[in-house]
Amino acid sequence: MFLLVLGSVLGGLLMSLWTIEADQPTRELASQLTVSNGLIGIKDLAEIPGLQAGPLTDTVVYVNGFYDYEQIHYGEAQFGFPQRNQMMIPLPAPTRFELWLDDVPVDLNQGKILAEHYQLSMQTGQFQHTLTWEERSTGHQIEIVLTRITSLKTAALLTQRIQVRALNFDGGKLRIVSGLHVRGMVQPKTFDPRLAGYDTTDILAHQKITPFSVTMRGTTFTASHSRQKLSTITHYDQPGRWLKDGNWMSTFDLTRQPVAMTKTVWHMLGKVVLDTTITSELTRPFAEIAAAQTAALTDFWQTSDIEITGDDESQRGIRFSQFGLLQALGIHGGQQGIAAKGLTGSGYGGHYFWDTEIYEAPFFYWNHPELARRLLMVRYKQLAHAEAYAKSLGLTGALFPWRTINGEESSAYFPASTAAIHIDADVAYLVIRYYQITHDDDFMQKYGAELLLATSRFYLGYGNFDPHKGFVLNTVTGPDEYTALVDNNAYTNFLVQFELRYLTQHFELSDLQRFGVTPSEWEDFRAAADQMYFEIHGNLIAQDDSFLSKRRIDLKQIPRDHFPLLMHYHPLVLYRLQVLKQADLLLAMVLLPEQFTQAQVQTNYDYYEPITTHDSSLSPAIYAIAAARLGEAAGAIKFFKHTVNTDLQNLQGNTADGLHLAAMGGSWITFAWGLMGLTVDDEHATLHPVLPQTWTRCTFKLRYRNQVYAVTVTPTQLTVTGGSTANVTIDQARRLITLTP
Amino acid sequence: MFLLVLGSVLGGLLMSLWTIEADQPTRELASQLTVSNGLIGIKDLAEIPGLQAGPLTDTVVYVNGFYDYEQIHYGEAQFGFPQRNQMMIPLPAPTRFELWLDDVPVDLNQGKILAEHYQLSMQTGQFQHTLTWEERSTGHQIEIVLTRITSLKTAALLTQRIQVRALNFDGGKLRIVSGLHVRGMVQPKTFDPRLAGYDTTDILAHQKITPFSVTMRGTTFTASHSRQKLSTITHYDQPGRWLKDGNWMSTFDLTRQPVAMTKTVWHMLGKVVLDTTITSELTRPFAEIAAAQTAALTDFWQTSDIEITGDDESQRGIRFSQFGLLQALGIHGGQQGIAAKGLTGSGYGGHYFWDTEIYEAPFFYWNHPELARRLLMVRYKQLAHAEAYAKSLGLTGALFPWRTINGEESSAYFPASTAAIHIDADVAYLVIRYYQITHDDDFMQKYGAELLLATSRFYLGYGNFDPHKGFVLNTVTGPDEYTALVDNNAYTNFLVQFELRYLTQHFELSDLQRFGVTPSEWEDFRAAADQMYFEIHGNLIAQDDSFLSKRRIDLKQIPRDHFPLLMHYHPLVLYRLQVLKQADLLLAMVLLPEQFTQAQVQTNYDYYEPITTHDSSLSPAIYAIAAARLGEAAGAIKFFKHTVNTDLQNLQGNTADGLHLAAMGGSWITFAWGLMGLTVDDEHATLHPVLPQTWTRCTFKLRYRNQVYAVTVTPTQLTVTGGSTANVTIDQARRLITLTP
Repeated sequence: MFLLVLGSVLGGLLMSLWTIEADQPTRELASQLTVSNGLIGIKDLAEIPGLQAGPLTDTVVYVNGFYDYEQIHYGEAQFGFPQRNQMMIPLPAPTRFELWLDDVPVDLNQGKILAEHYQLSMQTGQFQHTLTWEERSTGHQIEIVLTRITSLKTAALLTQRIQVRALNFDGGKLRIVSGLHVRGMVQPKTFDPRLAGYDTTDILAHQKITPFSVTMRGTTFTASHSRQKLSTITHYDQPGRWLKDGNWMSTFDLTRQPVAMTKTVWHMLGKVVLDTTITSELTRPFAEIAAAQTAALTDFWQTSDIEITGDDESQRGIRFSQFGLLQALGIHGGQQGIAAKGLTGSGYGGHYFWDTEIYEAPFFYWNHPELARRLLMVRYKQLAHAEAYAKSLGLTGALFPWRTINGEESSAYFPASTAAIHIDADVAYLVIRYYQITHDDDFMQKYGAELLLATSRFYLGYGNFDPHKGFVLNTVTGPDEYTALVDNNAYTNFLVQFELRYLTQHFELSDLQRFGVTPSEWEDFRAAADQMYFEIHGNLIAQDDSFLSKRRIDLKQIPRDHFPLLMHYHPLVLYRLQVLKQADLLLAMVLLPEQFTQAQVQTNYDYYEPITTHDSSLSPAIYAIAAARLGEAAGAIKFFKHTVNTDLQNLQGNTADGLHLAAMGGSWITFAWGLMGLTVDDEHATLHPVLPQTWTRCTFKLRYRNQVYAVTVTPTQLTVTGGSTANVTIDQARRLITLTP
Repeated sequence: MFLLVLGSVLGGLLMSLWTIEADQPTRELASQLTVSNGLIGIKDLAEIPGLQAGPLTDTVVYVNGFYDYEQIHYGEAQFGFPQRNQMMIPLPAPTRFELWLDDVPVDLNQGKILAEHYQLSMQTGQFQHTLTWEERSTGHQIEIVLTRITSLKTAALLTQRIQVRALNFDGGKLRIVSGLHVRGMVQPKTFDPRLAGYDTTDILAHQKITPFSVTMRGTTFTASHSRQKLSTITHYDQPGRWLKDGNWMSTFDLTRQPVAMTKTVWHMLGKVVLDTTITSELTRPFAEIAAAQTAALTDFWQTSDIEITGDDESQRGIRFSQFGLLQALGIHGGQQGIAAKGLTGSGYGGHYFWDTEIYEAPFFYWNHPELARRLLMVRYKQLAHAEAYAKSLGLTGALFPWRTINGEESSAYFPASTAAIHIDADVAYLVIRYYQITHDDDFMQKYGAELLLATSRFYLGYGNFDPHKGFVLNTVTGPDEYTALVDNNAYTNFLVQFELRYLTQHFELSDLQRFGVTPSEWEDFRAAADQMYFEIHGNLIAQDDSFLSKRRIDLKQIPRDHFPLLMHYHPLVLYRLQVLKQADLLLAMVLLPEQFTQAQVQTNYDYYEPITTHDSSLSPAIYAIAAARLGEAAGAIKFFKHTVNTDLQNLQGNTADGLHLAAMGGSWITFAWGLMGLTVDDEHATLHPVLPQTWTRCTFKLRYRNQVYAVTVTPTQLTVTGGSTANVTIDQARRLITLTP
């Protein structure tokens, strides 16, 4: 199954087109080799603590949605500031094993490592770590192979197999000790100072053990402040016994044939419950779990894979991005969102942001719309919190939190959070695009309409009709966080206008009367959309009312080591300048291509790109898409490569803290929206590919209105299979494909 | 000496025209009866801990400028945020006495209080507390009189006399124990949550005792984090001995003739040093210190007193305000600023704000210019900090901190602090007005020019020339804190323009070449002033570029208990509305009367006053002045009374946390600038009085260019004495006085 063609070496990283491999542990590698399935995330390169030779790498074990509260301290608090933060709880690692060979500890005091290899396969979904160890006094060599799967079929399931064999001797006694918190285990080390106050022993102190059988035990953890419970049930497939310290011990006769033990752990939020389904999952042989994982991934790639001929770097990068998105959300994962770092690190405390809707959801709604629906349901379930949040601002409707796990605002700096009210329009954008692609009327009726209405109501209250300007949304922060608390951020106003138009055009007032919509409110929705204010000078659109009046910056004058700027300049410096952390107006142009002429895109690209630092990993993808649409394939492929390599090459310098899911989503939209020129509206979807110079062929799939289309692009040919002939039109110049349902 | 004409009762407060008196302790009374002299502040109604009968009142002992650091915690810190806060340290009270009568403790277990009276005289500067206590078992009654002075002549000096006499018996033994921290003493209770983390025992732990003589001992405190030292030397004028616990004990034969003991404490920042001057001050008899205090106040009132006939409420209020200003700054006090609460409470941590320059300084520069100069020197000495602060924002020049003790920024919420860059122009305004009134060339040469230049340079860097608008100061916060981070706050721009014009008109470039001013920089100063941007619609001036586009609020729609709004609404609610915490544009009109027509003032008064909440105690005075200048004496006197009664009637509800020095300064400017129509420019000073209806006569004094003028106003007559005839012009209508140097 493995295609062990090693393509290139990226900072110690060995990669084939389907695997990520390395011989040395690094903190970045630990993030890159995380396995997760939307519910469980495991980042651990040091399963045998005694054999940790290289630099200390992070061990992080997360269950998505299992969080604790932390008090937020303010130097000077203002009314309405959030009082507590949520943070995903770093759990004790269930992946640790301690080994004794003939009563000699297998560690670096008693011997040395002869060889080591790490690998994650995107086809089998297995993480594998192989070590060869030689005992100093006897010269005995053993090979240890650790294989780990977080199941995509059964999200609650983590399985970890350890195989050991003698390489140059015959016969010995092997003892393996394992648990949730084995002796000598290095405590999970968290690198986010936000979490510095948190001590895993808090949860361990609230640990309750339930013995189920000789080989099966339950453990329930209770978070200190949220009082949320997480239960695990651990099963070992070999005989052994529980030690007094809570660990499990098995003993084996070691030969040149590998001995193997599989440890499987079931995860559930809430109290521990064991039923026959769980028992049968826990006792399933490793090989069956592995086969199911491969099958799930085969399915996944069958509908998602992008094949690029002529550019292996892009091929690997886009695949790594898609795999990362899948791992963050899972197929049958919990009903949770996608954290900014997925489950690969402690960065951002495990919070869900607007990245989900704008950057990560597109891959899912174009390839796996049932998963995009799940993302929407995460927001829908948190609507009550969003309504309470709007109320705390004295407004009706709903305001979604800038960063959250459970739906409550977790942000402590409102100029770059609460003020970023575009979050509501971002959610609405997902509702609309999801519906345009799927025509999922069940969703729209039951949930989508309410989401559109609640967020529209919020905007109507937040803004006001200015007699001179029209409908204004004052004191907001747009996507660009180097500009805050401004009036009429164009991105926000365009997205809100799009939402209000869609609401009033797609629905009749009578459809929404169950929510108490009145004719005058309905009229206000229309009027706000029609009279939405923008500051426009010819083709140039101002990022906000005051942006063009600020001092324009020359980024070349700033020393390289002063980036990212936010780490070196006070907000008052940045807010006063024409400088962008990330695409802002251009993002609106990318999201709403039907509303802008090529000339407008060109003018604004030329104006804003030179003052954009790309200090945010959310930025390059957007400029790449704009460049591609302007036909500038060279610029597009440059940004595309930057985006796909964000974590493979540690371009932000903090891959160790977790992978950048927004850049992974950004990779896909750069490919699809940018290079392939994919757009959609109420009527149809279109493709207008721009093939980068070195690409000789590229194939990919889309699911549009329940039909799967396979598209092949070569420098001279466009081919579409799937759907019926009536659905597909290709223009004379063979440059534009139109899909009509 | 006392004029014991009890004028009125204000919430339990008995007042004559020269005293504040009460029979019951309250938390507000404790603030009102604080004695201080600019260096030492003592707030203590419970000198005999065993006799505390009523509600617990705050005890606060401060030495101006003695502060400690406290770490600032941020939920999400940004680059450049201040890392530590300064706060004035609440010290152990040196004012406590414990008494035993024939070995029976004088407390509420052994007896009861028959009568009690508190009084502070604004003529003698003495606080006096009289108690009559009756012992339960014997029926013996004693009278205790405690008198306290913080010396205006010698700021380091606190003296406290205790007098006790038998009322209905002859002969007994009286034991008095006293110290810095007597047994049974209630620890100073601080009510500012900002200080909650601070424990006075931290300082006590760093206490060092130095015995100097049988009756004299030194103590040195070291602040835990700032490592600043404060030393006191305590002297008792009666025989006695030091107890092991550090307290002093004296024993007396009690008769119907009072016995008296005086405890005098010298205060000095730094290590303890005793010299002959200090010894002679410490051993000076109480009567001499009291006489010197009365003499100092006689001098003070001779040049400052305002006499109002026909309105005792106003008479008392203005006098209380002037006395409060004097107590906060002192005559020969330390070289420290005026804290927002003076030395009367823990509110605002003892920080100095812009109130000093704009609200409190005017009384001093018109009556005691040498004290105004001292205020300017406080800023000048902190110029190096201000330059470092500007540098932290990437700018040259100097930015004074929004709140500080030692010159470092102590504010943790930059939208309402660092962004309020008008602080620099406020300092410059004081430099200019001080000079116009005094022509103190020595000051201007040595210090004033540098202050003007450093702050002007900051503005030149902060703002920029916009090709369409002119010189803009974007992303600032004006005086009104319900609007933040806006562009071209009109107050800021007017004050900066005033400063830049003064700088370039009053000086030649050659005067400032020693500071490295170049011709092009000089030209930029001129250009910035000339091209300063304001958004003007006819007579209406926008508070900032976006203010008029916001939703206008109807304050009547807001429930009364939702004020102050900042305690009930998120900043994002307030920032989006046309609503003011306090005068903003109107303040510029009041400060720069020469620049606005009556019609402009009227238009803007009518526009802004209805949307001003006056949630800040800095607000009513400004509208009062504007109203008076518009000839609306009725409106002016209403606001004037509000301002003078801020603390006498606890109108802000937090007098217990300390007096509002800005309102006290506001009282004086309301009287002088408003009712008396006082203005000044480079050429002359003018007066244009508007006498409130009930006032039959009013006299006051001004010092202008080293001449003292006494002005008398009656409904029909204006009289000026002082100066020479040539200096004074009174117009035909006898409404306008012009003073020409």
